[in-house]
Amino acid sequence: MADYKAPLREMNFLLHEVFAADELWARLPGLAGAVDRETADAILEEMAKLAANTLDPINRSGDEEGCQWNDGVVTTPEGFKEAYATFCEGGWGALLGNPEYGGMGMPKMLGAQVEEMINAANISFALYPVLTAGACLALDAHGSEELKQKYLPKMYEGTWSGAMDLTEPHAGTDLGIIRTKAEPQEDGSYTITGSKIFITGGDQDLSENIIHLVLAKLPDAPKGPKGISLFLVPKFLVNEDGSVGERNAVNCGSIEHKMGIKASATCAMNFDGAKGWLVGEVNKGLAAMFTMMNYERLGVGIQGLGASERSYQNALDYARERIQSRSPAGPQQADKAADPITVHPDVRRMLLTQKALIGGARALSTYVAQWLDIAKFGEGEEKKNAEAMVALLTPVAKAFFTDMGLDCTVIGQQVFGGHGYIREWGQEQLVRDVRITQIYEGTNGIQALDLVGRKTVANGGAFFNLFADDVQAFIDAHIDHEPLAEFVQPLAEELQRLRDVTARMIEAAREDPHASGAASVEYLHLFGYVAYAFMWAKAAAAALPKVEQDSFYKGQVKTARFYYQRLLTRTRALAASVDAGSHSLMDIEEELL
Amino acid sequence: MADYKAPLREMNFLLHEVFAADELWARLPGLAGAVDRETADAILEEMAKLAANTLDPINRSGDEEGCQWNDGVVTTPEGFKEAYATFCEGGWGALLGNPEYGGMGMPKMLGAQVEEMINAANISFALYPVLTAGACLALDAHGSEELKQKYLPKMYEGTWSGAMDLTEPHAGTDLGIIRTKAEPQEDGSYTITGSKIFITGGDQDLSENIIHLVLAKLPDAPKGPKGISLFLVPKFLVNEDGSVGERNAVNCGSIEHKMGIKASATCAMNFDGAKGWLVGEVNKGLAAMFTMMNYERLGVGIQGLGASERSYQNALDYARERIQSRSPAGPQQADKAADPITVHPDVRRMLLTQKALIGGARALSTYVAQWLDIAKFGEGEEKKNAEAMVALLTPVAKAFFTDMGLDCTVIGQQVFGGHGYIREWGQEQLVRDVRITQIYEGTNGIQALDLVGRKTVANGGAFFNLFADDVQAFIDAHIDHEPLAEFVQPLAEELQRLRDVTARMIEAAREDPHASGAASVEYLHLFGYVAYAFMWAKAAAAALPKVEQDSFYKGQVKTARFYYQRLLTRTRALAASVDAGSHSLMDIEEELL
Repeated sequence: MADYKAPLREMNFLLHEVFAADELWARLPGLAGAVDRETADAILEEMAKLAANTLDPINRSGDEEGCQWNDGVVTTPEGFKEAYATFCEGGWGALLGNPEYGGMGMPKMLGAQVEEMINAANISFALYPVLTAGACLALDAHGSEELKQKYLPKMYEGTWSGAMDLTEPHAGTDLGIIRTKAEPQEDGSYTITGSKIFITGGDQDLSENIIHLVLAKLPDAPKGPKGISLFLVPKFLVNEDGSVGERNAVNCGSIEHKMGIKASATCAMNFDGAKGWLVGEVNKGLAAMFTMMNYERLGVGIQGLGASERSYQNALDYARERIQSRSPAGPQQADKAADPITVHPDVRRMLLTQKALIGGARALSTYVAQWLDIAKFGEGEEKKNAEAMVALLTPVAKAFFTDMGLDCTVIGQQVFGGHGYIREWGQEQLVRDVRITQIYEGTNGIQALDLVGRKTVANGGAFFNLFADDVQAFIDAHIDHEPLAEFVQPLAEELQRLRDVTARMIEAAREDPHASGAASVEYLHLFGYVAYAFMWAKAAAAALPKVEQDSFYKGQVKTARFYYQRLLTRTRALAASVDAGSHSLMDIEEELL
Repeated sequence: MADYKAPLREMNFLLHEVFAADELWARLPGLAGAVDRETADAILEEMAKLAANTLDPINRSGDEEGCQWNDGVVTTPEGFKEAYATFCEGGWGALLGNPEYGGMGMPKMLGAQVEEMINAANISFALYPVLTAGACLALDAHGSEELKQKYLPKMYEGTWSGAMDLTEPHAGTDLGIIRTKAEPQEDGSYTITGSKIFITGGDQDLSENIIHLVLAKLPDAPKGPKGISLFLVPKFLVNEDGSVGERNAVNCGSIEHKMGIKASATCAMNFDGAKGWLVGEVNKGLAAMFTMMNYERLGVGIQGLGASERSYQNALDYARERIQSRSPAGPQQADKAADPITVHPDVRRMLLTQKALIGGARALSTYVAQWLDIAKFGEGEEKKNAEAMVALLTPVAKAFFTDMGLDCTVIGQQVFGGHGYIREWGQEQLVRDVRITQIYEGTNGIQALDLVGRKTVANGGAFFNLFADDVQAFIDAHIDHEPLAEFVQPLAEELQRLRDVTARMIEAAREDPHASGAASVEYLHLFGYVAYAFMWAKAAAAALPKVEQDSFYKGQVKTARFYYQRLLTRTRALAASVDAGSHSLMDIEEELL
């Protein structure tokens, strides 16, 4: 397996040449002075080293060894403890944290690139700090001042980690039917009782304490999603002086045996009258959870991107070394027994498909992160619009990056032929690891329903129009620039197609309760391909003036061309499926399925 | 996990109502009298029991335990030995074998259905007899009378098994560069020396002897594929009286640790001056291998189909039990906490996608098997045309069934949400197991090159025209039948699209050596979707007159409708990608990939 090399050149290109991140940072109140291009580049370079030298080397061994459960105690694979310590010493857990409690307050545009590297090197490892960061976000947004002061600094340090306890055996997508109970105590705390499953990092041996954020119901809570509250339940109670005290009644009953991410402990957790504290308001637990969902869901999308990049690097390396058969145009290396397989059009198709989908995802994640930063640090109308953009684009990023993540890792495995199927080359692990990203944090089917239902149909396309306007503005600005016509003209057609399909879909939802659900997954993919087309057009626009300067730019333009000619064609199939409506799905009797 | 139930109703429908197999059998010389509907049904029912009661129960335990290698000896998982004995006692290894040497001489149309059941229940197990059957085919077609009499009866019995030794570490797709040597001896035998990898069933503890068919080169052989010969190399030499004698110098050096099919031993084999006998003519080993390839490759396609069916049965069972959220049209089971997830359009989309792709594959495998039978048992022009149809359709069946097999098993896993990712439900194993089918027996990229290059461009579309004529004949016969218009009219359009794309692709290949390779994979998929459309139209035509009789037929028509409305749309994207040509692939410099 090739060593992981962080794609710093691509990241820099996007941040500074495509999105002019430092201009944005310089004008946003909370970021001005805190981060500039130099700081950003230094941070990226540091993570590139950590990813390559510390996280990547324990990825395969972690998969082989897996986590172990013994009598309630979870042990992570060899090397994870040390790597986690190194990660925390570098301050990486605090990168995006609130500076009031010890965070560094960096922008998500930078954080997104950092996350890609961590995930490319080791998804299982990444999950431990990622869940902690998610818990910190929820706590920072909804916790009392007392809770924040007590927990956030240690969690940013990584000394304590976080876990999110939502799912129960009978309740995954439908959290309204959870059964975990919270009973109020006289001291203002609550007693939590119930069982949770699929809890990432629910127990482990990396951190001194584990802070669970748990969804539960008060005895008198209304039925359904409006009766859910959020509680902080530490593994060890925390003393007044901030030191770790006695063990709380939270226990890991078992860990799951899974297809992949085997070095990430997926725990069944039992709360047997554990002591907890309310986070946010009573019965508003789901809303509190969802404030951090946009970050988390983009983060899961980025896992798909990271795995794709890793698979691509391996595949490219292998394809260059592997000699097999001759070029259709005649021998290219006549002195050798055969040519390297990169001479074959179909091998190029595979590698370029990976490269184009990765570039599209990386650009779109940067674009979404930009809106997250404006939503967090901006003001007024700009902030409001950014929030809408984030709401719209988050389900696309989560589901499309991860669906393409599976495709990319499968392609990367295919390049290896039989060698891709055996464990030693690492390509099959990436397929197994990335597969979970389509499922957790809301399945991709649920993401699609969110995009179509709440984010599009519910507001009559208002959020969609903001996005379409942004694409249109790009088209208008470049439509007369002849060298870009091969991208801008088809982009205009694709945008029109997406507008039309969106309008018809909104219309159909008025009369048919099944219309949105029937259209959802294909619509999300259609949206994703158009969004990537927008990204590749932006990349081409930034690269085109410099193609003589550096072959990197030529590579960007040619990859954009491949994307437009070979992958963007998929939109016409997707649009036709969306337009087909719900009839063929709903007309068939349940017993005939 | 749901118990496996063989889809006998669907198989019967295809054999007897769609393809009128017994009419064909009654008129083909070698089959008349040997097989009729009653015999066929009895055989299918027997295998349904064997698959459910013997093979399915050791599928998951086989995956957990895997094969073990100790000091050159391979041990299969618990229960495999007993299951193999039961399989052999039932005479299943002889089903399609040559009656002159103890085979039953049954048609492939029946064999294809039998294979589906074996593979649905246990792909790892299936590989042992499948490889034996392949070796028997090659031996029967090319071996000397002496070799056939000595080996075939025991191999049909399963007392001895077969293995195919082709790949070497540096030579997979490109067998022309293999290094294994064969030196002629005075007694007419050969001494074989070299190393092979990825040898399925190269060693195991199921059979008393293992008969290797090995590709090797004579000292004076020409370079490349025209210098390869085929040899029979038994693990144990066979005495004059047919008993097993001394050990031959063939050894298993190790087994691979793989993503899936863990109960199938994938062996590295060392031949250290092993004794072997020539099969067929000197330097014509590749051609001898390829005579059995059509059977083997259809068989691999059927593995994709079997895994899909298994995944679909599990997913449907789970979806009916799992209650989560409410129908978009309001509660359907108001007395319960939520509705079963089959009320959701997107869950139906997933299940119907599986059902439609499975039905398409099962019909097309039956169709290809029909041509295999005519090619084997038929005469004259009919036989010649059947051979051409087999040649054309085999790469489609192998690659399209298995590509769709991955899609189907991934969908079946997705229906389970998080539960699909953990091992206990079995859905993730099917994804891991089926993944190999896209790789071995010629990667799907190689299948696509074969379809486009040798099978289409090389003969100017002559084979393609035979297929197109068959579709056209169906269209012509049904075009005036109004109730079928929803299928026949779009089928006519799709056929025209495929004809046009094929013509342009043949034309492009004249001027551009990269055109075929650039078009190949998308062209194969385009072909596959149109072929499934043909199959679903045939199924609808057979079912439509009987929809009032039995709800099964209604299910067939409605699934056909779903296929036409929601999946067949994909052809327009694929056609556009094929038409895009090779430029965007070949224009990019290798170092910019």
